[in-house]
Amino acid sequence: MMDFQLIIIGAGPGGYSAALRAAQMGLKTAIVESREIGGTCLHRGCIPTKTLLHVSEVYHDACHGEEIGIRFDGVQVDMEKIFSYKRSVSETLASGVETMLSKGKVAILRGHGIITAADTVEITRGESAGVYTADRILVATGSQPFRPSIPGLDLPGVITSDELLEGTDHLYSSIVIIGGGVIGVEFATFYADLGCEVTVIEGKDRLLSTFDRELGQNLANGLKRQGVHVHLKSMVQSVEKTADGMTVHFEGKNGEESVSGEVVLCAIGRVPYHNELFSDHLNPEMDGRSLHVNERFETSIPGIYAIGDVSSRYQLAHVAAAQGKACVEMMCGRESLTDLSLVPSCIYSHPEIATVGMTDAQAKEAGIPVKVGKCVMGGNARTLLADAGRSFMKVVAHAETGAILGAHMMCINSTDMISQMSAAIEGKKTPQELLQTMRPHPTFEEALTDALEDLCRKLEK
Amino acid sequence: MMDFQLIIIGAGPGGYSAALRAAQMGLKTAIVESREIGGTCLHRGCIPTKTLLHVSEVYHDACHGEEIGIRFDGVQVDMEKIFSYKRSVSETLASGVETMLSKGKVAILRGHGIITAADTVEITRGESAGVYTADRILVATGSQPFRPSIPGLDLPGVITSDELLEGTDHLYSSIVIIGGGVIGVEFATFYADLGCEVTVIEGKDRLLSTFDRELGQNLANGLKRQGVHVHLKSMVQSVEKTADGMTVHFEGKNGEESVSGEVVLCAIGRVPYHNELFSDHLNPEMDGRSLHVNERFETSIPGIYAIGDVSSRYQLAHVAAAQGKACVEMMCGRESLTDLSLVPSCIYSHPEIATVGMTDAQAKEAGIPVKVGKCVMGGNARTLLADAGRSFMKVVAHAETGAILGAHMMCINSTDMISQMSAAIEGKKTPQELLQTMRPHPTFEEALTDALEDLCRKLEK
Repeated sequence: MMDFQLIIIGAGPGGYSAALRAAQMGLKTAIVESREIGGTCLHRGCIPTKTLLHVSEVYHDACHGEEIGIRFDGVQVDMEKIFSYKRSVSETLASGVETMLSKGKVAILRGHGIITAADTVEITRGESAGVYTADRILVATGSQPFRPSIPGLDLPGVITSDELLEGTDHLYSSIVIIGGGVIGVEFATFYADLGCEVTVIEGKDRLLSTFDRELGQNLANGLKRQGVHVHLKSMVQSVEKTADGMTVHFEGKNGEESVSGEVVLCAIGRVPYHNELFSDHLNPEMDGRSLHVNERFETSIPGIYAIGDVSSRYQLAHVAAAQGKACVEMMCGRESLTDLSLVPSCIYSHPEIATVGMTDAQAKEAGIPVKVGKCVMGGNARTLLADAGRSFMKVVAHAETGAILGAHMMCINSTDMISQMSAAIEGKKTPQELLQTMRPHPTFEEALTDALEDLCRKLEK
Repeated sequence: MMDFQLIIIGAGPGGYSAALRAAQMGLKTAIVESREIGGTCLHRGCIPTKTLLHVSEVYHDACHGEEIGIRFDGVQVDMEKIFSYKRSVSETLASGVETMLSKGKVAILRGHGIITAADTVEITRGESAGVYTADRILVATGSQPFRPSIPGLDLPGVITSDELLEGTDHLYSSIVIIGGGVIGVEFATFYADLGCEVTVIEGKDRLLSTFDRELGQNLANGLKRQGVHVHLKSMVQSVEKTADGMTVHFEGKNGEESVSGEVVLCAIGRVPYHNELFSDHLNPEMDGRSLHVNERFETSIPGIYAIGDVSSRYQLAHVAAAQGKACVEMMCGRESLTDLSLVPSCIYSHPEIATVGMTDAQAKEAGIPVKVGKCVMGGNARTLLADAGRSFMKVVAHAETGAILGAHMMCINSTDMISQMSAAIEGKKTPQELLQTMRPHPTFEEALTDALEDLCRKLEK
């Protein structure tokens, strides 16, 4: 008789969502974690970042309050307090997850888990040290920041999001961010809001290069208006400590250039984390750095599954959570309700960005004829009264059938508006069908009606 | 030959939306307005109110910044500047509407329009004075604040939203608001945010008495925590000027009571506005104070139509706009895409409220068996990190078919999340179907997944 029906390694959003679903479905479940319950998302990712961005937005809005009638004599930023607030948010959420796990009778095993056989996990370096057996093992160990082998990138003045989110007792006077992807632009937004001198260095020809072109372009314009220096098509060559702080040398549009800052943030991406996870005699198949899984989240070793950043091509908490739930449901012979193929992305810039499905460029590449409906939100009342900056919505539909294929939004609240477009894509809805809904006034979402009406006109042509 | 194919009286959201649609469809159209383009919504309703609430939220957030690491010293409100900002927002939007009307070649006739025959409008008191003929006339004259005949309610210290939004050069030290409906609670929120002493007097047993019970109760608790005095089941008897300012006498739970404030806001509701609209010999059929219309928006006088507050049982800008577009489309022999029967409501309190469809109480009354899925958002990351106060989502579904019948949300961004629930009701979707969508993290909307999962469990029982 096994100790558990399921042992999950890693208590991030993938792992704990899987554990809660497993408990609901009656599986005797354990979850192994060597650090805090909640994983990267709760402690070194989404949640601390959004907490910081909430604080910086309050600061930014108040600093611009004079135009709207709010005046103050002085303002002080207390970084220690900001980071302590950030910690308190993470801890509250983590303790909530822990309570749910306990209520669900999920055993929490503290320590580092090593898979020593297809049905055995050995826990070392922790209070739950010992050997545990299970019918199935689910790997949910996530990812860690990537530091490429560029000279100087291992210097102490170069940090990743992990170290940055540990906190500091003062506001950096300047920061150089290597990488203009999601992580890079969110931290650029935070530090720019707080009045720090920010430089972003990106290798591609625009920020957020994997998204709709206009999003990254518009974002760069917004950041530049906030005083951020944005260097595109720029490849970092080396970093060194100089009298000016940390100096980054890069090959830019104008040849060799360099820029200095008090600190350098390396925000180039994340890589799957599976250090010391498998005993040497176990060699699961890999896809590059990722654990290989099939569509049922089975690794090449029978009885061992993997979900989330360690094996997924999406490094997103909601993907990990959805995969975790689906994986457990399939173990129990149920099919998952959630469509795992349609993945929304959110970026917490000013204004927010949210996107799902195809861009027109991707459609073109795939040979799919499309029309794009668009609303630039200058006339949207909520956008105007919040002085939100250039905001827009784009909806991509198949030129012949009218079926919606994608939506790309850059506006306040877009992260809470994107899911209806996922539902529209899943349901193969046309803009005419989406116009059945009377959208309330005054909302940001009214712009969707305008974008859909524009799309209808273009489809009629 | 008539001067126009369509004359619209009133350039609020109902009138101008109808005019723009008419122009799109090729009708030679005129719009008559005696005041500003944009009507109540843009100048004395939704937009100025939301602008004020935006300002008060920035102020409120700044005042509570210390807890999150930002300290503002000597924060002051400049009411003149706040109201001038409010005016600038309204004027920008109004000029945008005017530009669209001009681009659409809609003639703007300035002055007071009187319908002297089924095809004739006489314009008096304005630069477009004269007599104009049209194939059809559309009445979109809206509504005005209601002042019931309570002794003292006509005193100068008693204002309605019209006067309040005209602006004042100082912040009232105290305000007594008569009426705990949408208008009353939005102004209560604004003044409470700014630190003014606020009293709300409501006749029913809860605020927002026409909505889901828990919304009004939760809102009252939130306002009380902000220091607002809320008197329920309290009927105002009279208002008088006293040494304490304006004193309101009411019959409350403890018998006769009175409360004083610098000013009294009468927020009891609005009544259709059609003063001097019809010549004496024209007597259109009325429904109480409203113009009677059929489902094609035809009044009892052939050729004369009416939409929006003057004839609708909903006094909402988005209803007026949707009716205006639909009315014109039907004139041109097209059926409207928009479902006019399913009307969302939004309340810009802290946190926001948005609701559509049936409450469980309404279902019970109608003899429809329902189940209610609920998520209280204490564990929702965005809610927690924004310190949003008690927030929740409720989804009502038919107990047997599972079809979604209503949704009631009180949380940040709810006004931008409600339309997907309208679409779900229109499409007779079940919670299982809505769970197909992977909702992104971290969003407020994740709570909808939780509420839907709760609903699924209750439906399975």
